[in-house]
Amino acid sequence: MTISVAVAGASGYAGGEILRLLLGHPRVATGEVTIGALTAGGNAGTELRAHHPHLLPLADRVLDETTPEILAGHDVVFLGLPHGTSATIADALPPSTLIIDCGADFRLNDAREWETYYGGDHAGTWPYGLPELPGNREKLESASRIAVPGCYPTVSILSLLPALAANLVEPHVTVVAVSGTSGAGRSLKVDLLASEVIGSARAYAVGGAHRHTPEIAQALSEAAQSPVTVSFTPVLAPMSRGILATCTARINATGDEIRAAYEKHYADEPFVHLLPEGVLPATSSAIGSNAVQLSVTVDERAGTLVAVGAVDNLTKGTGGAAVQSMNLALGFGETEGLTTVGVAP
Amino acid sequence: MTISVAVAGASGYAGGEILRLLLGHPRVATGEVTIGALTAGGNAGTELRAHHPHLLPLADRVLDETTPEILAGHDVVFLGLPHGTSATIADALPPSTLIIDCGADFRLNDAREWETYYGGDHAGTWPYGLPELPGNREKLESASRIAVPGCYPTVSILSLLPALAANLVEPHVTVVAVSGTSGAGRSLKVDLLASEVIGSARAYAVGGAHRHTPEIAQALSEAAQSPVTVSFTPVLAPMSRGILATCTARINATGDEIRAAYEKHYADEPFVHLLPEGVLPATSSAIGSNAVQLSVTVDERAGTLVAVGAVDNLTKGTGGAAVQSMNLALGFGETEGLTTVGVAP
Amino acid sequence: MTISVAVAGASGYAGGEILRLLLGHPRVATGEVTIGALTAGGNAGTELRAHHPHLLPLADRVLDETTPEILAGHDVVFLGLPHGTSATIADALPPSTLIIDCGADFRLNDAREWETYYGGDHAGTWPYGLPELPGNREKLESASRIAVPGCYPTVSILSLLPALAANLVEPHVTVVAVSGTSGAGRSLKVDLLASEVIGSARAYAVGGAHRHTPEIAQALSEAAQSPVTVSFTPVLAPMSRGILATCTARINATGDEIRAAYEKHYADEPFVHLLPEGVLPATSSAIGSNAVQLSVTVDERAGTLVAVGAVDNLTKGTGGAAVQSMNLALGFGETEGLTTVGVAP
Amino acid sequence: MTISVAVAGASGYAGGEILRLLLGHPRVATGEVTIGALTAGGNAGTELRAHHPHLLPLADRVLDETTPEILAGHDVVFLGLPHGTSATIADALPPSTLIIDCGADFRLNDAREWETYYGGDHAGTWPYGLPELPGNREKLESASRIAVPGCYPTVSILSLLPALAANLVEPHVTVVAVSGTSGAGRSLKVDLLASEVIGSARAYAVGGAHRHTPEIAQALSEAAQSPVTVSFTPVLAPMSRGILATCTARINATGDEIRAAYEKHYADEPFVHLLPEGVLPATSSAIGSNAVQLSVTVDERAGTLVAVGAVDNLTKGTGGAAVQSMNLALGFGETEGLTTVGVAP
Repeated sequence: MTISVAVAGASGYAGGEILRLLLGHPRVATGEVTIGALTAGGNAGTELRAHHPHLLPLADRVLDETTPEILAGHDVVFLGLPHGTSATIADALPPSTLIIDCGADFRLNDAREWETYYGGDHAGTWPYGLPELPGNREKLESASRIAVPGCYPTVSILSLLPALAANLVEPHVTVVAVSGTSGAGRSLKVDLLASEVIGSARAYAVGGAHRHTPEIAQALSEAAQSPVTVSFTPVLAPMSRGILATCTARINATGDEIRAAYEKHYADEPFVHLLPEGVLPATSSAIGSNAVQLSVTVDERAGTLVAVGAVDNLTKGTGGAAVQSMNLALGFGETEGLTTVGVAP
Repeated sequence: MTISVAVAGASGYAGGEILRLLLGHPRVATGEVTIGALTAGGNAGTELRAHHPHLLPLADRVLDETTPEILAGHDVVFLGLPHGTSATIADALPPSTLIIDCGADFRLNDAREWETYYGGDHAGTWPYGLPELPGNREKLESASRIAVPGCYPTVSILSLLPALAANLVEPHVTVVAVSGTSGAGRSLKVDLLASEVIGSARAYAVGGAHRHTPEIAQALSEAAQSPVTVSFTPVLAPMSRGILATCTARINATGDEIRAAYEKHYADEPFVHLLPEGVLPATSSAIGSNAVQLSVTVDERAGTLVAVGAVDNLTKGTGGAAVQSMNLALGFGETEGLTTVGVAP
Repeated sequence: MTISVAVAGASGYAGGEILRLLLGHPRVATGEVTIGALTAGGNAGTELRAHHPHLLPLADRVLDETTPEILAGHDVVFLGLPHGTSATIADALPPSTLIIDCGADFRLNDAREWETYYGGDHAGTWPYGLPELPGNREKLESASRIAVPGCYPTVSILSLLPALAANLVEPHVTVVAVSGTSGAGRSLKVDLLASEVIGSARAYAVGGAHRHTPEIAQALSEAAQSPVTVSFTPVLAPMSRGILATCTARINATGDEIRAAYEKHYADEPFVHLLPEGVLPATSSAIGSNAVQLSVTVDERAGTLVAVGAVDNLTKGTGGAAVQSMNLALGFGETEGLTTVGVAP
Repeated sequence: MTISVAVAGASGYAGGEILRLLLGHPRVATGEVTIGALTAGGNAGTELRAHHPHLLPLADRVLDETTPEILAGHDVVFLGLPHGTSATIADALPPSTLIIDCGADFRLNDAREWETYYGGDHAGTWPYGLPELPGNREKLESASRIAVPGCYPTVSILSLLPALAANLVEPHVTVVAVSGTSGAGRSLKVDLLASEVIGSARAYAVGGAHRHTPEIAQALSEAAQSPVTVSFTPVLAPMSRGILATCTARINATGDEIRAAYEKHYADEPFVHLLPEGVLPATSSAIGSNAVQLSVTVDERAGTLVAVGAVDNLTKGTGGAAVQSMNLALGFGETEGLTTVGVAP
């Protein structure tokens, strides 16, 4: 018996990354999992080659239109769609279909936060595809609807989680996250043109305006069991993949206590790699991998924790988290088809 | 009567930038200022072309050795030398020679801070080549010894100065500064190889370890007239020039008060450009220019000021500040040979 | 009496570069030349800041619409418009207005070539803004209509001109030119997104399909006084500015003869810099400068000349050539406001 | 029974890439193949983490010194050593050990060519690890010594092979190959610093001086069964991985004949992917993959074939070819542990 997988939004970066990982997944190699419909919006009718020339084994596949009819009949449906469009698709598919949404529609608990940041009605809340959150892995194992975290939240949350969960820092955190451009998707915006990006770093959505801000605050507040305020600044850097998040908070514990908390928290996590003291992460080490590389430093003079996390925004930050979630929900090994080995230099 | 200028360390990036600016300086065009000795350490005896092929008018100039004898007889001597070596040169030159040091030797007031961060004996303190500090322009006009600020301090200090000077934020600031690689100089280190840097962002000297940390704290504490703690994290990004500093502090004033303070503080500064509300800076806009482009945003939810400054680390961050200082000390117009126009895209 | 200059297409890269150079032009500094109307198509009504945040002195200028009425009354009009649109504007302006067109409309002599490569009717032929062509400088000095060369043709022609003019190589040349993305303009195309460009080199318009091919062939054939075939391959590289053209042809002369021809040909050219033997150009050396840096190497074993030219596509390749042409046509010094000094690293 | 593999030169880029591929090899996953000694020269005694932080599963492995004693006892030894040093190691190991050399020592047939380009004595000639050459796959299946091709030769040869083997082009070819910096290895040279490379393209070793020139000529001459002259120009571009080779030759056949020859030649090759007409390769599509993506275009006007090949210099260009060769020599499936799927964008 085979499991068929569809990818909606296959011409986008999230869809492409899911397909890249599926092409290397051992269950696809054995035929247990088959890659079914690949769908798109405006790109329906074109070959995948036109959008993802790096996916040679699927280059000749023609994209179908993203409709419930095309997606129906698949056991797993990945959604890489614009915000606000997943609910309609999801409602039209049977409850037994495993739907894994890479968009934001089902990430937030608070409807008012959703409306503030995204506008329109809140579609609901699905299990959050970050198994590293306390108690979350079990929820994903029995889920048939999963909301994949945003890329910035993934690395920001994992970088600060142990400190806040153990109340070792004050609940006011500052995150400055340097990102490659693929996190913005394949949008035709002047700001994302190579000529504008190359040779330049720029901040955007400063002052809490970025939509990932409430998502970070939500997870950290749950972990801390009390409200955490987040000053979040995203910075665009001239690279295509990768996020480096520098996360700072004032400490109310010693460096040893903090480090011990991180070591304990992540001891058994396959995809969170705590670096030895004095070693700092680079995004290049994470490219194509599902790992978060994380350093923890206490600045005694400034009285701050500086946790720096590196991640591939398209892998652990999107497509890898989606596959990791699929593995859990289908009862596969959590790490199947995923690696901690990056492509560097 | 002509003024002759020598550049020691002419094969390095700071030396090259000073020469680039001098070649475009109107007093060099008229012959009032002449470019005299260009000196180097290990590169003495080679042509400038081998190090700065972009400086065509000086390509055939052969580098002399950096000695007091070679530098003597010049009216102005720029130093772009390794830390700890400027004092010997300076002591051997007459007090009337205008010496402008791009190194760190004479930037710090506190000898213990110097020893902590640099090791060895503290050489002393010279007027600090940041005319935008309150009362500092006048000191530079009568100086014959000037210490050019570090590149990170320039943009960090200018981004936070008005808020701290007016006591509008708490005296605990977080600076995460994304820099191009030229700030590290032309050092042969594996970490600075293109293969390692391209496609990657990485933090370094985390936790207050970077030598520019006490320099930032010194200027901000003076401005605030009380101690300011600085959590400073430098991040290397895949670009050669430019620094984007994201500076965060908890506010104790309204957004309007803060913005008004910045507008007043920088109203007459030729090289600090406060961007309209909602406009954010990119380093590309500052490349080759002596301007700092600065945005000021208040995050009401997080209760923070987020000031983001963009600068060319080699121009306003080093060579431009050196020429600006020279202009002041020689009684030239402060902006001569400097521009607020960047080279973009 | 002042000379007023208008720039049509001011929100594009060509327009931005012309403005950058005008802001540093000595005649603008003295007030002899004033920057008048800045116009645009779809961007009319917006501030220049939105498009060129690096041009601080003009940041608040609002763009007018590109119409003959707005442009009328200026002594000089620079056009940075889409292909096929310059003629209408030019026809509506007085013959005495100096019009300098950065588009392709008036570059080709042969109407059939124009129709093959651009489609539509051929608008005519204007003096070609490459003063380095034999006998061309004089034509520009008396011109009131000038067609600025394409960026690839500028460097390709100058790299091969002396060899073909003296019949030292066979009239079949191969040019492989690596370009930054700004040469493609500010077009919203997926292929030009940073995520697609960074980390990648790709050829495009292979096999003679690029519109600059006939322009290169035209100038080289004129120089050789017989037809020259050109195999031209443009390659897009992850940089925003710069072209490096590797130009190869089979030799029928010695290396010494060829080198001597280049030295003689370019002895008095202010913007063509022949590098010493064994020194090879890098585009970084030319960024922001109006110079072409050129190496000439003979491969005795393969029997080929390999001439490699580096240029800034936006400066000498577009806006610098436009200003150089203006200088000639207005009787200014040819090099005013232009430099051979690049911004590096 | 397990097969143990050692990697000499494990701290270099070739060694790192071999390890990256081995970590994803199915025979390593099953334990049939084990990763034994990792050795280095000056880096002996350090952890692998210091050199390849992306290889997390091996991060704690300490590098041994590269000596025959350490390497002895392994079934397979990969060598990623400086030129001229492989022979000594190889001579000290048993003939039954499968030695796969990523260096140049055993690639050339002609001792005089070796001496001209590398100096010193020619060590000999080993089977050439490019199975796509006619008749070569069989030789590799029975080999215990294999010389992995250079990165430029791999893509240059495969781009021109079918045309020359069938005598469809003249035997004078021009190759201009744009490469990322990792091809130069982890050498501490000023020219390879990020500040120098970013934003710049530059040619080097122009005029036949590059050591890969005779290697390209050797394979193409064998294929053509008569001497082929090669004008080879390498160009460094600001990217870390990838080569795009633009290969031009004058045609003596029709475009259809040439295309048919390529289609036939590569019909069964798993790692050479001939793109549909009009589709051109980008290096990003090949990153991390073992595929060569290849376009073939005939320029009727210029009378030339323009074959453009894209490859990852570290994968198919080095480490992937090494693993592909290992697979053949050990009787594994040729494609095991290798993929045609790239990591993009």
